[in-house]
Amino acid sequence: MLGAIEAGGTKFVCAVGDETGEFAHSIQIPTTCPEETMAKVIEFFGQYDIDSVGIGSFGPININPESKTYGYITSTPKIAWRNYPLLQTIKDTFGVPVGFNTDVNAAALGEATHGAAKGLDSCLYITVGTGIGAGAVVQGELLQGHSHPEMGHILVRRHPSDAYTGKCPYHVDCLEGLAAGPSIEERWGDKGINLVDRKEVWDLEGYYLAQALMQYILILSPKKIILGGGVMNQSQVFSSIYKYLPELMKEYVSLPELSSYIVSPELGDRAGITGSLLLAHRALIEEN
Amino acid sequence: MLGAIEAGGTKFVCAVGDETGEFAHSIQIPTTCPEETMAKVIEFFGQYDIDSVGIGSFGPININPESKTYGYITSTPKIAWRNYPLLQTIKDTFGVPVGFNTDVNAAALGEATHGAAKGLDSCLYITVGTGIGAGAVVQGELLQGHSHPEMGHILVRRHPSDAYTGKCPYHVDCLEGLAAGPSIEERWGDKGINLVDRKEVWDLEGYYLAQALMQYILILSPKKIILGGGVMNQSQVFSSIYKYLPELMKEYVSLPELSSYIVSPELGDRAGITGSLLLAHRALIEEN
Repeated sequence: MLGAIEAGGTKFVCAVGDETGEFAHSIQIPTTCPEETMAKVIEFFGQYDIDSVGIGSFGPININPESKTYGYITSTPKIAWRNYPLLQTIKDTFGVPVGFNTDVNAAALGEATHGAAKGLDSCLYITVGTGIGAGAVVQGELLQGHSHPEMGHILVRRHPSDAYTGKCPYHVDCLEGLAAGPSIEERWGDKGINLVDRKEVWDLEGYYLAQALMQYILILSPKKIILGGGVMNQSQVFSSIYKYLPELMKEYVSLPELSSYIVSPELGDRAGITGSLLLAHRALIEEN
Repeated sequence: MLGAIEAGGTKFVCAVGDETGEFAHSIQIPTTCPEETMAKVIEFFGQYDIDSVGIGSFGPININPESKTYGYITSTPKIAWRNYPLLQTIKDTFGVPVGFNTDVNAAALGEATHGAAKGLDSCLYITVGTGIGAGAVVQGELLQGHSHPEMGHILVRRHPSDAYTGKCPYHVDCLEGLAAGPSIEERWGDKGINLVDRKEVWDLEGYYLAQALMQYILILSPKKIILGGGVMNQSQVFSSIYKYLPELMKEYVSLPELSSYIVSPELGDRAGITGSLLLAHRALIEEN
């Protein structure tokens, strides 16, 4: 039996299942402090005979297996979790192989294996919610190098009519600073859910996301782009992206039909936990 | 013996050698029309007993092995080469395995194997010359997906004092449109070589390249960045990049010391042909 943890900033999802993406049981645990949250995580997995665990975690995290702090959550604003050895805690407790990557890389793996990019060895998974993050599968492997991608913080060109300052504590008006959920709320003075009828809100959102997609496409050339997260529940944003992306790209590269190329996650909010289960499977295979 | 072709817009470099990157012989052939150029390419390799050939080509090219037009040069402005079956011509003539990729992906492979990124499974190779192009090695494999990267055309934010329009026939003021060699010449009214003492020229160049590197780092997280091409012979540009990149990145991601992270090609102008030789070696191994 495989164990999976999707470690998020507000909740941990824990599940057991197999590599087909079928879950036997799952549970949600609020993210408080490591002592409290992890005790419940360990209690959950203690009920099962697990062969390995996969973790898709919020970040930034250390995913370099050669580093002394491999498997740590690193410089997160959640002080209690800063420098917490997430991987090692699970490994020490259960004595099984543990796979470890970002939540968004795990989600990309889930979608590439059982979701919208099934059968493809390449996809990009982007979540647009309280922050903007992305993960990718490149030639069947999770994208990583010096560290994991931090695609939400790329720079975009400001729309000439957009006077909103931006909300990123690092870069002010990077993509996340201009287009994540909290920025939408601050710019327009109301929660996204109350702005459904304001066309200009979602048009501008698509304008910024189309710019980001242009950069991602020119740099990574993914075979499928999956856009999830709370903001993308506004399907108007997809329409806006389909409008702006060709205007920006000027037919420089030939792309598949956009409505089948840039899509919603097929696994919905299970992409991350499904990918974590697959990380467990990969860890098990690698160890044997 | 392995054969290698670096197919460039002005010349084809052909060489024979082995996977250690040692060349027995090499030749340069002007890029005129396919009939003329390819006759000389074939004549050169006809002298040797070659086991496979690797091609690093100017683009855009089709690198999808499942496509009917795999190995073609596609929508190049060089009319005579448009839709030319470069891979197939070599394969049909010599009946050996042929590896095929972009010139910049080949250069990245060369540098990752025998050059500045030796021993690393990840690097980004960027050339800044008459155009801007980039290739990458990601977890040991050449970066490709739906197609090959076209990183030179990403959007950058204009410097407030830069009134130059831009020169990209597609996007006008994308990175290539603002920062490739011909743009430098047009903006400042003289060839780069005559502008060596104009500090502001190279400062601005570094400003745009630092922005591009920020995007590449946030998206790909390469373990080493190699900047080649004629423009990078102005070492002042490196200084400017080292200045602007941290200002833009705001310590959001931790990077290695920049002067050892962002470097010149160790193989100089042999990066592409060395990588092409390695493509030949990979093609040979895959076929057996």
